[in-house]
Amino acid sequence: MEHLYSERAKAIKASEIREILKLTQQPEIISFAGGLPAPELFPIEAMKAVACKVLDENGREALQYSTTEGFAPLREKIAQRQNDMGIQCNRDDILITSGSQQGLDFTGKIFINPGDYVLCESPSYLGAVNAFKAYQCAFKEVETDSEGMILEDLEKSIIETPNVKFVYVIPDFQNPSGRTWSLERRRGLIKIAEKYNLVIIEDNPYGELRFEGTSIASVKSLDTDGRVVYLGTFSKTFSPGIRIGWVCASPEILNKYILVKQSADLQTSSLAQRELSMFLDLYDFDAHIDSIRTVYKKRLQVMSDAMKRFFPDSAVYEIPKGGLFVWVILPDHVDTRKILVKAIENKVAFVPGGSFYPNGGRENAMRLNFSNMPEEKIVEGIERLGKILKEMIL
Amino acid sequence: MEHLYSERAKAIKASEIREILKLTQQPEIISFAGGLPAPELFPIEAMKAVACKVLDENGREALQYSTTEGFAPLREKIAQRQNDMGIQCNRDDILITSGSQQGLDFTGKIFINPGDYVLCESPSYLGAVNAFKAYQCAFKEVETDSEGMILEDLEKSIIETPNVKFVYVIPDFQNPSGRTWSLERRRGLIKIAEKYNLVIIEDNPYGELRFEGTSIASVKSLDTDGRVVYLGTFSKTFSPGIRIGWVCASPEILNKYILVKQSADLQTSSLAQRELSMFLDLYDFDAHIDSIRTVYKKRLQVMSDAMKRFFPDSAVYEIPKGGLFVWVILPDHVDTRKILVKAIENKVAFVPGGSFYPNGGRENAMRLNFSNMPEEKIVEGIERLGKILKEMIL
Repeated sequence: MEHLYSERAKAIKASEIREILKLTQQPEIISFAGGLPAPELFPIEAMKAVACKVLDENGREALQYSTTEGFAPLREKIAQRQNDMGIQCNRDDILITSGSQQGLDFTGKIFINPGDYVLCESPSYLGAVNAFKAYQCAFKEVETDSEGMILEDLEKSIIETPNVKFVYVIPDFQNPSGRTWSLERRRGLIKIAEKYNLVIIEDNPYGELRFEGTSIASVKSLDTDGRVVYLGTFSKTFSPGIRIGWVCASPEILNKYILVKQSADLQTSSLAQRELSMFLDLYDFDAHIDSIRTVYKKRLQVMSDAMKRFFPDSAVYEIPKGGLFVWVILPDHVDTRKILVKAIENKVAFVPGGSFYPNGGRENAMRLNFSNMPEEKIVEGIERLGKILKEMIL
Repeated sequence: MEHLYSERAKAIKASEIREILKLTQQPEIISFAGGLPAPELFPIEAMKAVACKVLDENGREALQYSTTEGFAPLREKIAQRQNDMGIQCNRDDILITSGSQQGLDFTGKIFINPGDYVLCESPSYLGAVNAFKAYQCAFKEVETDSEGMILEDLEKSIIETPNVKFVYVIPDFQNPSGRTWSLERRRGLIKIAEKYNLVIIEDNPYGELRFEGTSIASVKSLDTDGRVVYLGTFSKTFSPGIRIGWVCASPEILNKYILVKQSADLQTSSLAQRELSMFLDLYDFDAHIDSIRTVYKKRLQVMSDAMKRFFPDSAVYEIPKGGLFVWVILPDHVDTRKILVKAIENKVAFVPGGSFYPNGGRENAMRLNFSNMPEEKIVEGIERLGKILKEMIL
């Protein structure tokens, strides 16, 4: 059937790394690979209570088709939370999506023509890269440092690269680097996007998972002319399994996302939206997020301490102030795909860094997740991994 | 921002009809417009019970990320049901999607290059047309009669039309026509697809809603070389609000759908899949479908009787043997968009037929849904509509 597939489908290949990482689902493996929340923190009893209440009070509506835009009271509450974060918006600026991954897919569909270039941080989120690639774009990776994209390189990239529509960024606790953009860089990004009339896609799954210091204004909150599309999600603060995220954008742009959603899957689950909305009404969501932060902060501390003890000096990393990941850079000659094979033999897993560079060519980094494993396993896993690194890095 | 949108996004327009039909959500309107199931038949108490049981027994897994392919026990049960319908498959041939609309979107993504032609029944399902259109295809409508596509016209269309990848059909109680393909035509369709090496997309949301006679073998069950992609859904037999459908295809083709799903939204809700799977374990799903059939059959009878009484003789229709819709053809000069405006003034609604012809040009039909309104409202609505038709059709 090969000749019948679209050009875009011919280009989609299964990830080799993904196949290897399927092995990490065995329970005896200590996995730092996925970006999974800690399941022991899921509000299971609350979920049961809201499921029953929604079905008792509005069962027919919860199981019926509803609007593409999403359940109005949930959109209202999201808008309010965003207002509290300094983003001026109301519920009509919010579209509910099936996780923020769907927002990324729609972004590709709405902006990318085959051959267009996407500007992104180097490294950047694998799932976004794959979502955009499905629309046959190429990538220009912009160099980053501990404050975010290097703006001179961003501007140079825009000038040198044909057919750029948007800049994709994760300004808070970036995946995979863990880095957070400074306010100055955020302002600079907006200015450059205005100068060259580009859209900014701000993907913010981790912003609420800050363990220390104070939040930095989101890029969307600095947006004065509706060029920032903000992607949010409840996957890291409530549950990824129920698949609820959102897009916040100007009316003109949001209308495109709504029309695309309509033809993509009609709507996100009516039941899940009502359950989440009810949860936000009846429970203290901020207290729930606080409890997640407390646990993750401790796990990161434990991982950091273990890395100091067990990792070779040649492993370079910054400890992030939030999020889910520590990014480790090893000497240039190291290929972490080879280290992964050895690690899995030793029942420990991570994601090799090469996957996060859309144009490839760098294999000496690894992404470690600290949210999903209990503290004692983190210590044990880092010890095992440290031993392998010391053996394999000569 | 107009210049930044992709060509496909520039082409997506809001439907005028859709905007008019938003008015039909007012409770005082008798709506024959949507394709909504009867909400009073939703298994609300069962849904509560399975939600609690799933969260009690596997709350962590139900709220966590899971595999793109879907929850294995649910896929197993779907495969078994399909085996019972004569489709040879196992769980690895099934991908869970967010409703079958998502299966349609993925079909467009996997097969359509800009400028390709999609062959479909004339008329065909609006949502499929929109999903495919988003990938910039054109349509060749194939003439149909009461037994399905006219095979001579299908073959002629394939020969005359460039860049055809697949034929899209709804062989059971078609949307909007209500027609069901004969076995002979199904066999003929397969033969022609083999001859010209095309894929068949068989969309079957209504097949289980048969009110009389015996089921006709699905096109997929006649497929010997893996060229039929079958799209199924629980929207009409369980609940559309929870958004669960599936794709059943050969390993090679299904692998494309899985990769596309991965970048589109990672996975369908873990919780919803486990709830539905538990429902299938604990309740008699076939008895539940029987109860839906009983109610819809009665509603269709009531609508049919009222149409005989109140519609002008110039309104031509066939009463279907199942599904959700009656398709009414009026004299050529009638524009049902104008009739809709008058109907809404009189608090009754339907979908004008023009929307179901992807190439437009025919405005003299209307689609009436009979599943969503109680019997007394059906009679009242048909009486009102009949009065308008008699006034407006001269």
